[in-house]
Amino acid sequence: MSLIVQKYGGTSMGSPERIREVAKRVARFVKEGHQVVVVPSAMAGETNRLLGLAKELHPDPSPRELDVIASTGEQVSIGLLSIALMNAGVKARSYTGFQVKILTDDAFTKARILSIDDANIRKDLAEGYVVVVAGFQGMDAAGNITTLGRGGSDTTGVALAAALKADECQIYTDVDGVYTTDPRIEPDARRLATITFEEMLELASLGSKVLQIRSVEFAGKYKVKLRVLSSFTDVNSTDMGTLITFEEDETMEQAIISGIAFNRDEAKITVLGVPDKPGVAYSILGPIADANIDVDVIIQNASLEGHTDFSFTVHRAEYKRAMEILQSKVKPEIGARGVVGDDKIAKVSLVGIGMRTHAGVAAKMFRVLAEERVNIQMISTSEIKTSVVVDEKYMELAVRVLHKAFELDKEPTQETMKP
Amino acid sequence: MSLIVQKYGGTSMGSPERIREVAKRVARFVKEGHQVVVVPSAMAGETNRLLGLAKELHPDPSPRELDVIASTGEQVSIGLLSIALMNAGVKARSYTGFQVKILTDDAFTKARILSIDDANIRKDLAEGYVVVVAGFQGMDAAGNITTLGRGGSDTTGVALAAALKADECQIYTDVDGVYTTDPRIEPDARRLATITFEEMLELASLGSKVLQIRSVEFAGKYKVKLRVLSSFTDVNSTDMGTLITFEEDETMEQAIISGIAFNRDEAKITVLGVPDKPGVAYSILGPIADANIDVDVIIQNASLEGHTDFSFTVHRAEYKRAMEILQSKVKPEIGARGVVGDDKIAKVSLVGIGMRTHAGVAAKMFRVLAEERVNIQMISTSEIKTSVVVDEKYMELAVRVLHKAFELDKEPTQETMKP
Repeated sequence: MSLIVQKYGGTSMGSPERIREVAKRVARFVKEGHQVVVVPSAMAGETNRLLGLAKELHPDPSPRELDVIASTGEQVSIGLLSIALMNAGVKARSYTGFQVKILTDDAFTKARILSIDDANIRKDLAEGYVVVVAGFQGMDAAGNITTLGRGGSDTTGVALAAALKADECQIYTDVDGVYTTDPRIEPDARRLATITFEEMLELASLGSKVLQIRSVEFAGKYKVKLRVLSSFTDVNSTDMGTLITFEEDETMEQAIISGIAFNRDEAKITVLGVPDKPGVAYSILGPIADANIDVDVIIQNASLEGHTDFSFTVHRAEYKRAMEILQSKVKPEIGARGVVGDDKIAKVSLVGIGMRTHAGVAAKMFRVLAEERVNIQMISTSEIKTSVVVDEKYMELAVRVLHKAFELDKEPTQETMKP
Repeated sequence: MSLIVQKYGGTSMGSPERIREVAKRVARFVKEGHQVVVVPSAMAGETNRLLGLAKELHPDPSPRELDVIASTGEQVSIGLLSIALMNAGVKARSYTGFQVKILTDDAFTKARILSIDDANIRKDLAEGYVVVVAGFQGMDAAGNITTLGRGGSDTTGVALAAALKADECQIYTDVDGVYTTDPRIEPDARRLATITFEEMLELASLGSKVLQIRSVEFAGKYKVKLRVLSSFTDVNSTDMGTLITFEEDETMEQAIISGIAFNRDEAKITVLGVPDKPGVAYSILGPIADANIDVDVIIQNASLEGHTDFSFTVHRAEYKRAMEILQSKVKPEIGARGVVGDDKIAKVSLVGIGMRTHAGVAAKMFRVLAEERVNIQMISTSEIKTSVVVDEKYMELAVRVLHKAFELDKEPTQETMKP
């Protein structure tokens, strides 16, 4: 007998019919002898409907009240799922975040979990109940209702699995696992049976939106075995989706490259003719940080006659604001020659834990792109990823040729594995 | 400065536009210098929508889980109304039943309020906040979410007014007060400026569905000044609706008859040829009570040669079940001659505190109905009401002729008042 936490997303909970299917799946695990804690999201569309009502009443609604409103979506889900479970012959009991209780900080709409009191859950599990806990929500020390932000139900699932020392946290969604890249871009994309936590982190943060990034960090911190599965397979399917593992636990061989991530969410900014002297990077990025604008890739070119060009990327939504700050404030202050930008860029990243010990990945990447005449505008590397910024129009081509060149459509062989 | 509790019904909260109107009305009272606690119901239709989802998943859903689901309607309302109040320039803060906290017993779907912790509310009021409390809901001692049953938001409003010793509890609804009878039946029905608590109780229980009966009982017990008003008048309207008073506080003159109530919800059952001996009433009504069927009017005719006919009314929905119990169990046991019933009846009641000291009301009622050839099937009287059961098809006629005969369309004069 094992203890499993199962999280079901909004699409999986989208209608009474879908909720019945979830109940059947949970009932199967119970019949197999497992203890199950279920964390459902709000029914698809419900959170947006509720927040839309709030927006009609105030251009900038109180975050505290938004959480009071938004948290009801999951509360409805736990009640409905518990009722469906009972109809499937399974003893079930629901808990709101408040009732568990899941204590968070007081950062309304983006709260962080501080602690979980698992006493009630353990007692119910021991008595043979399936425990249904509302995802996405908690309460702060003052008793206010809080929410964890979009995708927060994943975090609730992982946090509960950590608190209960569950054997596995299963994330049921409308995709059946993690792929080498987005199959809508590359039809030969292959599903990975396992992926390391660090690779997953890179793939999630780079745009493979299977899991909420904070939940993956959480899983890593507490060593929760995380599995991504589809809730749209047959209830009795033995498909095991993708398991997210922790490198130190793994003895199996690992492919050099696990997948290709990409995003179109960024814009590139270059400050031209910057005097090449100490503190200049701070003079440029300080005001950007003060405006709460996150910076991703940063590049400083070699100095030419005491002047250099300084480039970085920001989220596309912040592009205009960042340009204004640079034009009006930074440029005159540091005496730069000019500021130019481009919001029609894309970032493509190779991700793989095997890259650490395998030279030549970056070189091969650049060669493949060069052969297709894809101009590389910026390069950024870390231990387990190599990213390039290219013109947005080349993004899909770049993903496809790299996928083929690194043979991601094929099961890993000895040749593409490292010991 | 006075402290006012205002309860707004589901129609008043039916859309963002309506919620904005509620916020404007509350803001007016704040501007006039009052402290205000607001108790909103769920948006019209929402509770039925949620319970409908539950019914799709289980023929007989768990009451505990129904309360988890149904309570979200009011939770959304408190958040939205708080946001609308802030948009109207008023400081506001919402509380769920859980957060207040409103402690109830554990009778899910029909819980009773045991106590209210008013510490947070008092603190917020002192700091200039309008406090918005979810109606209809509470928590039991074990921390489960409970609801007070249909119309429970009225009870929440009155209970809060009692706990806070509020100067007045205003119930805003889609009617503008209590009328002498239903204006849809009698267009000359007149709105009452005041009505006593006991009359209101009779009018509410007899079908003038302005207020939930439990809330009126509650108001009576704790001497809460209760006022029924319309939320559909102009926000700046000085219309004061109908004030529900307590006889002992009143020095003003009182009309003999305040209003005419009626309902079509009952069915009549007669057990024929019952042996007239001690204990026979219990032999008949005992099994009915055991089946949780409520009985309203009860009549036992005079004995004729040791046998009598025994008649009573039950709710129309329980008619079939009651008939079965009587036919299969009671009739053979007591040796009755037969059981007959009629579910096409209506009850019409004159209600008035003045009746207590004014003879002849019943006689006049019977004369008026006789003149219209309305046959009276059953009669039941109490201190402040006289009810008759008639064929359903005569109900509207009976209401209209009695309304005219007792001059309810006219303001009370010396002649129709008692000192």
